Amino acid sequence: MVRLVTFDVFMALVDIKGSLVPKVSGVLGLNKLKAGKFVQTWRQKQMECAAISNSLGHGRIPFRRCTELALDYTLAHFKVPVTPSQHCKLVMSWDTLTPWPEACQVVAEIRRRGYKTAILSNGDSDMLNALAKPFGDNMQHILSAEMAGAYKPHPEVYNLPEQKLRILKADVLHVAGSGTDVIGAGSFGIDCYWANRDCNKLLDPTFVPKNEGPDLRGVLELL
Amino acid sequence: MVRLVTFDVFMALVDIKGSLVPKVSGVLGLNKLKAGKFVQTWRQKQMECAAISNSLGHGRIPFRRCTELALDYTLAHFKVPVTPSQHCKLVMSWDTLTPWPEACQVVAEIRRRGYKTAILSNGDSDMLNALAKPFGDNMQHILSAEMAGAYKPHPEVYNLPEQKLRILKADVLHVAGSGTDVIGAGSFGIDCYWANRDCNKLLDPTFVPKNEGPDLRGVLELL
Repeated sequence: MVRLVTFDVFMALVDIKGSLVPKVSGVLGLNKLKAGKFVQTWRQKQMECAAISNSLGHGRIPFRRCTELALDYTLAHFKVPVTPSQHCKLVMSWDTLTPWPEACQVVAEIRRRGYKTAILSNGDSDMLNALAKPFGDNMQHILSAEMAGAYKPHPEVYNLPEQKLRILKADVLHVAGSGTDVIGAGSFGIDCYWANRDCNKLLDPTFVPKNEGPDLRGVLELL
Repeated sequence: MVRLVTFDVFMALVDIKGSLVPKVSGVLGLNKLKAGKFVQTWRQKQMECAAISNSLGHGRIPFRRCTELALDYTLAHFKVPVTPSQHCKLVMSWDTLTPWPEACQVVAEIRRRGYKTAILSNGDSDMLNALAKPFGDNMQHILSAEMAGAYKPHPEVYNLPEQKLRILKADVLHVAGSGTDVIGAGSFGIDCYWANRDCNKLLDPTFVPKNEGPDLRGVLELL
């Protein structure tokens, strides 16, 4: 029986593209189309850095560092010059990403129904603390991949509810934002709802989630 | 002192795009532009599957299986129907990828100079045996990530020269085809030449390679 609902952040709860495209456009003076491509590469390389970190076996490269390395790559790739102040502004903009329109209401309703809530994300703890602010007291716990020393889809990250909150995986519903997150949760044995906004396919159909929908509202039907 | 030169395959030795675009175009009846995008997604998802495999901790998903899962994803993504026979033809086309124009000559020259040679690749052993054929006796050893139970950039893969051939990493020069491979070899402590055909940037500049160039010829200058 579900006691705790955990949420992926960067895909499930907040709108990376909608938040960062205007920011990148404003700070770097790029038009919207180019800023969109910039953000796409930045995000892709940030995730690549996290995946590399999992494989290298020298501990977890902080997510802030992955964000910086990926920004440097993207700036070089698009041949865009940047001042230290602009660089800092861009890296820190990951702390003020805007929640999807329905996100705060859905989390509030889950709390109202008596379930526990937690963020379960690849972000560093300080980044997640910042991103949790719009949810106020309705987001009760923050479980950062930093605490596990690895990135999703590594099982140690999905083990955090049991390790930190003493809640067994059978009592957890995870709200995933990406196919990789769905595979990680499924492989670890946690039930999953996929907020699949881009109508994406699952790379490994072995781990089909319990349910999926185009936004977060579908979570409420499972509780 | 270098005794053994190891080669990445899928980026460094063979031309994935040049080999697969005509194949995909012919088998699926796509125009060249669409076939190019198809191959790009197929390759990207194949690598994503390998990275996920490294993180999940349930052993290495075979590379052939990653190739199949990525093909299924790509077919669904592009909404292209396929018969079982076409599907099989496409998966098996990874065994007949064409070497880059200078590849066979460079490997032959390295052997002529008295160095040992080996493939060191993420492919399964049977795939690598097939891809090694054009190199004849000049490619002496095949070190598959299958033997390490993990994918690059995991250190166990870069440990194969010592484990299987008893050649210390200080005596190895690795020819990498991708930035991730450069980072993996550098992190493990193997000297590296980057055949950087797309003039790509390194995501983590901590691991700048000993040398790089636009094709394989630059390896000869290091020996």
